[in-house]
Amino acid sequence: MADHKPTLYTVLSPALLNLYDIDNAIVVIIDVLRATSTIPTALYNGATCVMPVDSVERCIELGKATNGITAGEREGKVIEGLQHGNSPFEYYPEFIKDKVLVLTTTNGTKLLHMALERGAKNIVTGSFANLSAVVDYLISQKQNVILACAAWKNKINIEDTLFAGAVINKVKAHFDINCDSSVIADALYNEAKDDLYAFIKNKKASHYIRLSGYGLEKDIQHCLIPDTANILPLYGDGKLCIG
Amino acid sequence: MADHKPTLYTVLSPALLNLYDIDNAIVVIIDVLRATSTIPTALYNGATCVMPVDSVERCIELGKATNGITAGEREGKVIEGLQHGNSPFEYYPEFIKDKVLVLTTTNGTKLLHMALERGAKNIVTGSFANLSAVVDYLISQKQNVILACAAWKNKINIEDTLFAGAVINKVKAHFDINCDSSVIADALYNEAKDDLYAFIKNKKASHYIRLSGYGLEKDIQHCLIPDTANILPLYGDGKLCIG
Repeated sequence: MADHKPTLYTVLSPALLNLYDIDNAIVVIIDVLRATSTIPTALYNGATCVMPVDSVERCIELGKATNGITAGEREGKVIEGLQHGNSPFEYYPEFIKDKVLVLTTTNGTKLLHMALERGAKNIVTGSFANLSAVVDYLISQKQNVILACAAWKNKINIEDTLFAGAVINKVKAHFDINCDSSVIADALYNEAKDDLYAFIKNKKASHYIRLSGYGLEKDIQHCLIPDTANILPLYGDGKLCIG
Repeated sequence: MADHKPTLYTVLSPALLNLYDIDNAIVVIIDVLRATSTIPTALYNGATCVMPVDSVERCIELGKATNGITAGEREGKVIEGLQHGNSPFEYYPEFIKDKVLVLTTTNGTKLLHMALERGAKNIVTGSFANLSAVVDYLISQKQNVILACAAWKNKINIEDTLFAGAVINKVKAHFDINCDSSVIADALYNEAKDDLYAFIKNKKASHYIRLSGYGLEKDIQHCLIPDTANILPLYGDGKLCIG
């Protein structure tokens, strides 16, 4: 065992991000339903890159400049003025190959920009869709890690906490984890791991209620399957590209 | 089953308190290690009342005015200028009977004042020391509930989350719980309930590390035993008295 393992912290809400040193760590942006499930899916299916932006105006502007596809949601619904929504099913290979996707969402892309503003230098995105790619990357880099959950308007949510727990479950031998939120996420994942969808449904997760109200159960189920788009979206120069 | 059960929400950090409607609910202030374990203990052992204050200056001032005992901690240690600390063991009957205790702590009394400032009208304190009293009160009142964890300088902690989970475990049939943080707390308690102290020790809870560094394992063990001081501290007019 190494004497000095890197540290790992979990931030369960963007409102708590300021409590952690994020400029000296790999920051994993987690928004399982659905931004960080859609991002690796688009890249895996051939998108040139995904440009995460924090406003609808900027999304439309960059869409024009890059001849890209504009997409996003607020409150879980497609935004007027944008071409597409935030479902991974929209970004199949025949549609997205060799295109730029410009994306803005309620929580995920907002948190990414918050992390940038707070000095994060090394940002990737994670969700069950690319669980193994995230785990392999974090183990290989031997750097401090912050698992940053996008939550829902700062309220902690189950699915992002579950994904943090899934990562911790697989990487914990490689990190020094002195972080109660990480213990909590790991315990939640242990309780739910046999059937994540049943857990989220039976426990009436707030996002399950919200999205199933729009008939999006299929999205929820898909976003909980591991490694459906197992690449690593790595941020640099305003873009997420396969790392 | 009633059609309209009251709601229950869990707030895992004071930094998230502003996301919830606290003026229309019973707010349970939770600071297991150790403010809200010490408060019911002092009352159970005969203190006239406990006055929770948010600064050392105010503590000394009120101590003089009431001829009370001044007590408190910052960073888990007794504060210079105050007479006593924040351990329940300090407040045995022969010492505390018929006296006023004026208390200021890093997280618990601070959160109580934050709740007051945000308009909370009905405040009680909870910890394992008075678990049954809290549970009975919440069930009997048929009002909305906010379980407010004091955490550690806004970082979520295991022991306060565990107590929220213990309450939820016992009251959930009586409330409409549409709150992911409550599901998370309940799951954590389910994982830990067979031996709370072993869980906190084995998982290296941050507060376990901090307090055991000061030789306070005995305090931690004591603060996890249910119903050692099974009364309800109810806030009104600047005081916590037996409700």
